[in-house]
Amino acid sequence: MNEIKIFSPATVANVSCGFDVLGFCLDTIGDEMIIRKTNKKGIHITKIEGYDLPFEAEKNVAGVSALAMLEDANPDFGFELEIYKNIKPGSGVGSSSASAVGSVFGMNELLGKPYNKTQLTNFAMKGEALASQCEHADNIAPAIFGGFTLVKSVAPLEVLQLPTPKDLFAVIIHPQIEIKTSESRAILPKQIALQDAITQWSNVGSLVHALHTNDYELLSRSLTDVVVEPHRSQLIPHFKDVRKAALENGALGCGISGSGPSIFSLCYGNSTAQKVAQAIKNVYSKTEIPFEVYVSEINTKGIKIIE
Amino acid sequence: MNEIKIFSPATVANVSCGFDVLGFCLDTIGDEMIIRKTNKKGIHITKIEGYDLPFEAEKNVAGVSALAMLEDANPDFGFELEIYKNIKPGSGVGSSSASAVGSVFGMNELLGKPYNKTQLTNFAMKGEALASQCEHADNIAPAIFGGFTLVKSVAPLEVLQLPTPKDLFAVIIHPQIEIKTSESRAILPKQIALQDAITQWSNVGSLVHALHTNDYELLSRSLTDVVVEPHRSQLIPHFKDVRKAALENGALGCGISGSGPSIFSLCYGNSTAQKVAQAIKNVYSKTEIPFEVYVSEINTKGIKIIE
Repeated sequence: MNEIKIFSPATVANVSCGFDVLGFCLDTIGDEMIIRKTNKKGIHITKIEGYDLPFEAEKNVAGVSALAMLEDANPDFGFELEIYKNIKPGSGVGSSSASAVGSVFGMNELLGKPYNKTQLTNFAMKGEALASQCEHADNIAPAIFGGFTLVKSVAPLEVLQLPTPKDLFAVIIHPQIEIKTSESRAILPKQIALQDAITQWSNVGSLVHALHTNDYELLSRSLTDVVVEPHRSQLIPHFKDVRKAALENGALGCGISGSGPSIFSLCYGNSTAQKVAQAIKNVYSKTEIPFEVYVSEINTKGIKIIE
Repeated sequence: MNEIKIFSPATVANVSCGFDVLGFCLDTIGDEMIIRKTNKKGIHITKIEGYDLPFEAEKNVAGVSALAMLEDANPDFGFELEIYKNIKPGSGVGSSSASAVGSVFGMNELLGKPYNKTQLTNFAMKGEALASQCEHADNIAPAIFGGFTLVKSVAPLEVLQLPTPKDLFAVIIHPQIEIKTSESRAILPKQIALQDAITQWSNVGSLVHALHTNDYELLSRSLTDVVVEPHRSQLIPHFKDVRKAALENGALGCGISGSGPSIFSLCYGNSTAQKVAQAIKNVYSKTEIPFEVYVSEINTKGIKIIE
């Protein structure tokens, strides 16, 4: 096998209560990449479609993670990457993670799978660091492992694969506005009230328990965020209206996807998800802001080979 | 049935990472109580052995919880309580909770079980509030439900019963010193670093996952506390030496039980627990401080009828 085509999924990080540690994987939204062995050593990006991104490997997220793996594997050949970018950078559904993960997943397949998922996560984090100035794995882990993940620690890296209850769907609205990463970081307090922290870790524990017990109602009651959302939601126009519409139409919960501006809703069943999607569309249709709405079942497999 | 004798167990609250929400139930340490129907209305405490506690129902933890239930049930008879107190008040293993739980559990049996466990927890919280000036359930919940519990919220009360992996034992050392509740509260910061809170909720999520997957190593890695222990451990002499001895002898984790001064260690298997108990005894034997050491399997049943 000298060439592989892969689908690298979008992901939702934080999942309301689990800032910086929880995430889940989407199915219908994602990038495609072709990874090809070449006699020429090194990493060469030969094609980028969808968005304007750098072709120099060391300036490209997918290139940086690829270079990290290449340095470790040290094969006597190189790789070409073709990137078909569908996830808009800065949308809050793990665009850079999808890029970072795609190259190393594909290369690992072409190398005969010498690396496990945790090692792939580690390589991908090098690419993610280029985009976000720090190594984190809350989008990378669900893209690689699929389903719900909990990043227990980053150094050393430890990812827990959580169970995914059946018939769980996500609705994503991506308002086409730009939130600068620096702004979405700066708005977060360095210190938080102990009482809020207790509420948050009670909800994280409850959410993990809900996933293990297929308890959708408990999942719903756990999807709250008293720490980050009160600050970051200010940067997202009509956030409260979207949440109200989602919950009124049967969503289990609704929160900011990653650092935004995308908003996710979790729903039991596709029909509820479609209803929630329509209600959210109705909210944003009344505004001047362009937007996209997606419905996706939770993707329990993660990144996959297409061809 | 007009009379019942019950065993009301000691409990460990917080469990390192889960301040204010997690707890587990002990087996060999606990109070005994006799609860008896009487023609005389009201709650009458007729006997207290072990420690010097008030006989007036409204000033006694077991009496206050009993009165709360009595007011709700409104039977045309009353109850007598005999309290055989084995758990020293202020030891940090849920002494007041055992009292608060014992009376309402016994009365519920004699009334024909009109109340479920969550309702019992609610009544017991009224008694606990007498001892600790606020209603909390992190010791009451494990005493009533058994095993590991997570108090998702207090108002409305929601207790999650978590699974308990097999062969899990606790070692408790109770240094016979007094820590004033006011002092152990005052030492806690009102604000904590967001980064520490993230570490803590990552560990709470991991601990819940570990309990569901019988992963003792993950349980071990989750039993850390970067928020409360650094402050409260200063009030407990030789805390670090105890922890070092426990971990070096195979304990999965070691932390402050409730607000202290007791220290708990969790161990896989009785033989490890016995070894850890001996190592901890060796630490405190070199000091002038009197102490007790107990070994108990995790009690998955909670409070129980003896006769």
